[in-house]
Amino acid sequence: MIKIGIDAMGGDFAPEVAIEGAIAALKFIDKDSRIVLFGDQKRILELIAKHGSNASNFDIVPTSEVIEMGDHPAKAFVSKKDSSISVGFRHLVEGKIDGFASAGSTGAMMVGSMQVVKPIEGVIRPVLATLIPTISPEKGIQRAVLMDVGLNVDAKPEVLAQYGLLGSIYAKSALGMENPRVALLNIGEEEGKGNAQAKATYDLMKEDKRYNFVGNVEASYIFTGKIGDVVVADAFVGNSLLKMAEALYRINFRLGGGKPRFKLMWRWLLGRIVPKLYWQYDFWDNMNAESIGGLQVMGVNAPVMIGHGSSSARAICSMILSMERDIKSNFPAKLREALKESAATEAEA
Amino acid sequence: MIKIGIDAMGGDFAPEVAIEGAIAALKFIDKDSRIVLFGDQKRILELIAKHGSNASNFDIVPTSEVIEMGDHPAKAFVSKKDSSISVGFRHLVEGKIDGFASAGSTGAMMVGSMQVVKPIEGVIRPVLATLIPTISPEKGIQRAVLMDVGLNVDAKPEVLAQYGLLGSIYAKSALGMENPRVALLNIGEEEGKGNAQAKATYDLMKEDKRYNFVGNVEASYIFTGKIGDVVVADAFVGNSLLKMAEALYRINFRLGGGKPRFKLMWRWLLGRIVPKLYWQYDFWDNMNAESIGGLQVMGVNAPVMIGHGSSSARAICSMILSMERDIKSNFPAKLREALKESAATEAEA
Repeated sequence: MIKIGIDAMGGDFAPEVAIEGAIAALKFIDKDSRIVLFGDQKRILELIAKHGSNASNFDIVPTSEVIEMGDHPAKAFVSKKDSSISVGFRHLVEGKIDGFASAGSTGAMMVGSMQVVKPIEGVIRPVLATLIPTISPEKGIQRAVLMDVGLNVDAKPEVLAQYGLLGSIYAKSALGMENPRVALLNIGEEEGKGNAQAKATYDLMKEDKRYNFVGNVEASYIFTGKIGDVVVADAFVGNSLLKMAEALYRINFRLGGGKPRFKLMWRWLLGRIVPKLYWQYDFWDNMNAESIGGLQVMGVNAPVMIGHGSSSARAICSMILSMERDIKSNFPAKLREALKESAATEAEA
Repeated sequence: MIKIGIDAMGGDFAPEVAIEGAIAALKFIDKDSRIVLFGDQKRILELIAKHGSNASNFDIVPTSEVIEMGDHPAKAFVSKKDSSISVGFRHLVEGKIDGFASAGSTGAMMVGSMQVVKPIEGVIRPVLATLIPTISPEKGIQRAVLMDVGLNVDAKPEVLAQYGLLGSIYAKSALGMENPRVALLNIGEEEGKGNAQAKATYDLMKEDKRYNFVGNVEASYIFTGKIGDVVVADAFVGNSLLKMAEALYRINFRLGGGKPRFKLMWRWLLGRIVPKLYWQYDFWDNMNAESIGGLQVMGVNAPVMIGHGSSSARAICSMILSMERDIKSNFPAKLREALKESAATEAEA
């Protein structure tokens, strides 16, 4: 039995959209997966009833407080002991749930990740990652991992080089890739290009035999999947690229681009017959934060996911499904194993 | 009389597209503007005739060599004395032409800019800038300046802060903006956000009274024009953002998005009646490197522009028109003036 912990109070439109999203996710999660909602029990029950679902479909952990966006994350995490986020992390570290996701305070989610769940031994710096769509004439629409999208700026080369290991193990375990290609974001493809940080990182990644480093990738090729399945960047660049991609998605959408032309069912059916017909819609839709669900906190002892503050019900539903996938991947355990092996090899040498 | 110097041999499809683009530009340039072509005279004359134009429409400066993409830029610039780029820069520095543009070797163009035309006194580091489209419900489609898109990585804070002055004077003189808002690309809007470089740059820009610094801008807002008319970034980030925007343009275009639905004339006419009808096309079209024409080398003593190696005839035509605009702006002289004033003020203090 998998227990997917969800902060029902997190995000600008919580708890309404959180409950709507959770109800929508019921149709897609495995039979032996269970959604555990943390939040105001009375409101949660009301909303479940309002949307025609049944309370027995969920586990509910009642909490009485909420960490607001304006709160100081670290202080609020401690002072609001009965907040949905604080309680969620306690349940996570006690093994009562298998993963925890929230569209609430990113800061508080990071405090919980770092101080309650804690970094895996051997991880220099946990990192924020996201999935992005790639499109190519050969493979159609696939996914790639982009990291760091917001945690460590001025990251040391050894930190960036280790992202490669984290991303590679994640791509294998959660995305089922056999030998994911790990690339370093740079402003030129050749070795020796870039700023001091990128050059030093390249040298370290080239020597790391634990993953399949394929060299530099320019931002032009991130969305083509031509070079890398995992793209490693400093948080300053990764965050800027992610924000720009999201902005172009929104602009394109508002301008009428990439909108579905048929109802979902027909689209799905037609897409099976003539897949390329819907690539335009599908590519942009996969760029949509709503269908990505959230950012992974990689390198800590349990799956943690942070959604957009402005998450809609659809975004929450995606977040729940992504969290289920990440829990099943057993990514933290596999990373722990890999780091133990590395430590053992180093001790021998 | 304005003399627009164009490298007829620069780019993957030169000289064919260069001549085609130059002929197309004849329709749009001012009566007292003159295009000066540098290159293989025989080929140029053949191509002018082939495309039904007349040699008397152009000045031609015959050259016998070409700096190839594979050549070492600095060495080739010196050894190939009679190359179109080397001769072009000599004409520029001697005042025989008023600006020089090429879609050829970026490296050789930079050598010419730095060693022949030379940085303006007081400019710490010349910089590569580009125009990008912005779109908002209030103002429709406008333009902004993004810099540095490829020259100085690991730029010192004082270098970045000076970009603000360069960009501001450019936006005033070439784009006719009255009081351009200069913003620093960062991963958060509040003061104190970002990496060490961004924090130190913020402090310097805040103190610089020569331009209208409005604070940080996140990559989400670059294309909305919400915050800045001039966006300052380190070359590593600026180049990555530009490459990603170009890639998303290409992906969107190939997927069928943002394509014009009518012939240009009808589009123009209908666009005048219902402007929003064409925003989708126009926004993406303004993202198209073909309609931007090239990157400005800012901070040197004369207008220099570098086009995409893969420039089409349309791109060359845009490059010529942008170069004409930049020559008319008298940007280098205005920058020299501003820097002299600053030096005088500092000497007084």
